[in-house]
Amino acid sequence: MRKIKDLGEFGLLRELGLFGQKLPEGWIGPGDDCAIAPKSGGNLAITTDLLIEDIHFRLSTTGPRDLGWKAAAVNLSDLASMGARPLALTVGAALPKNLPFEWAEEFYKGLRECADRFDCVLAGGDTSSAEKICLSVTALGDMEGRRPLLRSGARENDDLWLSGEPGESAAGLLLLEKGLSGGKALEKCLRRHLCPEPRVELGLLLAERRLANSAIDVSDGVLADAGHISERSGLKVLVEAGKIPMSRELCACAAKSGADPFELALGGGEDYELLFTAPPKNREAILEIGKGLGLGVAMVGKVEKGSGVSLLGEDGREMEPKRSGWSHF
Amino acid sequence: MRKIKDLGEFGLLRELGLFGQKLPEGWIGPGDDCAIAPKSGGNLAITTDLLIEDIHFRLSTTGPRDLGWKAAAVNLSDLASMGARPLALTVGAALPKNLPFEWAEEFYKGLRECADRFDCVLAGGDTSSAEKICLSVTALGDMEGRRPLLRSGARENDDLWLSGEPGESAAGLLLLEKGLSGGKALEKCLRRHLCPEPRVELGLLLAERRLANSAIDVSDGVLADAGHISERSGLKVLVEAGKIPMSRELCACAAKSGADPFELALGGGEDYELLFTAPPKNREAILEIGKGLGLGVAMVGKVEKGSGVSLLGEDGREMEPKRSGWSHF
Repeated sequence: MRKIKDLGEFGLLRELGLFGQKLPEGWIGPGDDCAIAPKSGGNLAITTDLLIEDIHFRLSTTGPRDLGWKAAAVNLSDLASMGARPLALTVGAALPKNLPFEWAEEFYKGLRECADRFDCVLAGGDTSSAEKICLSVTALGDMEGRRPLLRSGARENDDLWLSGEPGESAAGLLLLEKGLSGGKALEKCLRRHLCPEPRVELGLLLAERRLANSAIDVSDGVLADAGHISERSGLKVLVEAGKIPMSRELCACAAKSGADPFELALGGGEDYELLFTAPPKNREAILEIGKGLGLGVAMVGKVEKGSGVSLLGEDGREMEPKRSGWSHF
Repeated sequence: MRKIKDLGEFGLLRELGLFGQKLPEGWIGPGDDCAIAPKSGGNLAITTDLLIEDIHFRLSTTGPRDLGWKAAAVNLSDLASMGARPLALTVGAALPKNLPFEWAEEFYKGLRECADRFDCVLAGGDTSSAEKICLSVTALGDMEGRRPLLRSGARENDDLWLSGEPGESAAGLLLLEKGLSGGKALEKCLRRHLCPEPRVELGLLLAERRLANSAIDVSDGVLADAGHISERSGLKVLVEAGKIPMSRELCACAAKSGADPFELALGGGEDYELLFTAPPKNREAILEIGKGLGLGVAMVGKVEKGSGVSLLGEDGREMEPKRSGWSHF
């Protein structure tokens, strides 16, 4: 008998027929960062993310306030990648009976801080007991007439863009797991892992001004998420290793933890930066937006005819990536 | 140190400041069956419900297809109690790695059957692994210009109304727990527990025609949910025991399992009928609606000045209820 673990997360969803289902007109269904529901007065973007104890976080290394922030942030990041304005969050929180009340209090405080930061209302939810903490956050966003940025929208000859500096979150996770700490570089990577910043404003501006053809938020890792754009757009995505911004802090953390910084930058998940594609004519406008937001945006590759993701070394030759994202099963 | 279990579900939400928080204009926040988000083109109703293995259901007694139906139904019931039209569902499903794939397949089949029945789109979600099954469903509804039916809307001198026949779900649960089966009466109560029918059409008509002042869906039990209307409306709710519809099937199941049918009808949860209050002038219109839907609606009490819930016996004197709902902690 086939078990859930034999399929993996994407296999499970595919087998269940949740991808590619026939939806009523105007809907965009499972398979993107958000679903889109048609609605007079502005379509809606909807997304749900789970955070499970000992799968997505450990109580021993993650404080409740950071976890609350992150639970909101990962959902707002999904809205960001569609170009939706955050409207409301709901939270299903299953908590062990013996958890201190202060834990729940700090969790909701963090959640509310992140929601407030992005003008999003914490609108309700449900609580229950459970043996381990199981959190499910749903975010609702308003497209306000903007066309959503989809994974499937990439066009031949698009540039591939990335906001921020990838890999720091994965480096932060490594530090946590190895119990390492100390210094500003390490602290920055830790914060990036524990309190990621969803790129809501960037997503809004890209969609508002119709600068990008496709977008995804980097949750599985740059290469894996480039793969999602490639697969859904039916095109080849080239990632140029030499153009990936590598922060000083990432390199310091990698050195401390004995990891390859390059591997962390390309394969590490949970950066919650935006990876998007745009026609070459929009280069200046995109750089201007990055400048205006005080957020680095870098051209890190191209979209071509073909399929799959290729990683190009500085010599322009294809390299063999060692890791490419992770699965929850 | 205070633990989650010391507070109970309502205490936890109250302590966390989720009730009575200050929200932007036009919002209705936690504390009702749904939150209401203002939106041009029709306000939105949002609700989230958790279903946790060994808290809300047992794998040994609940099949995946029924569970899928119920996971959707309990959320659509929350929309029904506000008078919202179902728009979309999202599902966060944390599943053990060793669960057979067929379990997930049947679960999503049941979920989709219920969504389809009420013209609601299964718009997406998230999956993860977990030690025990943890399901979180969020439903989104469209108010389409209708004013939402709130728990807080009851007025002095309103009639108290109840759809359907309460207690059958609790009787069905008792049968499951005692391993009893056989006969049509028992089967009906079992189905009512496993596959409840959300009263979507009733809620829509009550809100559309502005017939009800307040409403709640019966998830905690008739007396407990009457208590929620009482508390939120700042009025006393009288429940007349002799007017509560008691089905033949409930009585048969109660006899078989050795329970008091009266206690099941008033204290049993998960009926997902609508309990609502309406001015006496609307009596005929409400009875007409019930007739049109083929659904019993009965006047079961009154709303008065004062506070709390009183249960009146057939002699008009106050009785002492034995049970009043249940807590998840």
